[in-house]
Amino acid sequence: MLLPEPIQNLINALERLPGIGPKSASRLAFYFLRADESLSSELAEALTGLKEKIAYCSECFNITEAGRELCEVCANPKRDASIICVLEDALDVLALERTGAYQGRYHVLGGVLNPIEGIGPDDIKIRPLVERVARGGIREVILATNPSMEGDTTAMYLQQQLRSTGVHVTRLARGLPMGGDLEYADQSTLLRALQGRQEMD
Amino acid sequence: MLLPEPIQNLINALERLPGIGPKSASRLAFYFLRADESLSSELAEALTGLKEKIAYCSECFNITEAGRELCEVCANPKRDASIICVLEDALDVLALERTGAYQGRYHVLGGVLNPIEGIGPDDIKIRPLVERVARGGIREVILATNPSMEGDTTAMYLQQQLRSTGVHVTRLARGLPMGGDLEYADQSTLLRALQGRQEMD
Repeated sequence: MLLPEPIQNLINALERLPGIGPKSASRLAFYFLRADESLSSELAEALTGLKEKIAYCSECFNITEAGRELCEVCANPKRDASIICVLEDALDVLALERTGAYQGRYHVLGGVLNPIEGIGPDDIKIRPLVERVARGGIREVILATNPSMEGDTTAMYLQQQLRSTGVHVTRLARGLPMGGDLEYADQSTLLRALQGRQEMD
Repeated sequence: MLLPEPIQNLINALERLPGIGPKSASRLAFYFLRADESLSSELAEALTGLKEKIAYCSECFNITEAGRELCEVCANPKRDASIICVLEDALDVLALERTGAYQGRYHVLGGVLNPIEGIGPDDIKIRPLVERVARGGIREVILATNPSMEGDTTAMYLQQQLRSTGVHVTRLARGLPMGGDLEYADQSTLLRALQGRQEMD
């Protein structure tokens, strides 16, 4: 049996989303049919012209509303402008903010160096970071790219690029995650935890 | 940090979907930002006015395109009109069709009897089914509501309602699912498999 075209179109669109397979897509599509009209209209509205409604901060490349020059963090004079936390993407800003412990500014690279996929230093926001640091007033740059091969490579490259500025460059700590289990930790996590062990007060 | 309003709206809309929590909603929203423009526009278009684009078959209450009187199955003269398979919702039609083994017609109840949620016989399409059978020409009614308490109750109620018509009423077989493991089967599934055991040829 062929499904009615409007439903089939919806299933096709949903299937393109990450983590949604053919079965979940069908279930979701039929859920929209049963659910309140507002569910589909709200989502449709939020999606329409999404990219035009969003701009990127001219200072740190975090997302902001279209028409604004700076993002919420850079526009906030209470945030410490002398510390920059360097992240892979804007979603990571959200994660850092959720800790409630970071009061500095950000710099969103928009990716990581990845020679296999052909992503080099000029494809992500490395030069603007170096220029930003060179302009002065920065005390510390925290490299918070992901603890992956690409993230580490990018962090090392950034460290080299920033060396001449004389600024203090740090990297997020590695070790056992909270609630983790020593027995299930992988070899390299355990190795990092051992190497990075700290004196107890 | 407050997110830009367009992104926050999108996250709120996505969070309303079943099986999508706050974290998945954020990830999906940022995915739309990174991905090709067509992804969000295609989905927005498919969702816009969805309910107006869909109608329900006047014969079996399966979904069909707006403006059509009958669904694809009822409109197909090759489908055996003397057998009706009774289902809870239109998604179940899809599941049955996928087997490729069923050549009869359907009847979509649009729910099951559920006294706790206040769903009685008049809230689902029971009367139209009884009328359809009473009109004659039906050989068999297969009750294919889910093997749940509500599904069973609904099937029993339908059986009673259809008794006077003298039509042959059957229910889908219960037993071990394909690929299942005897050891992990729950008590009542195993009990049904035992009770329904069949002669081997």
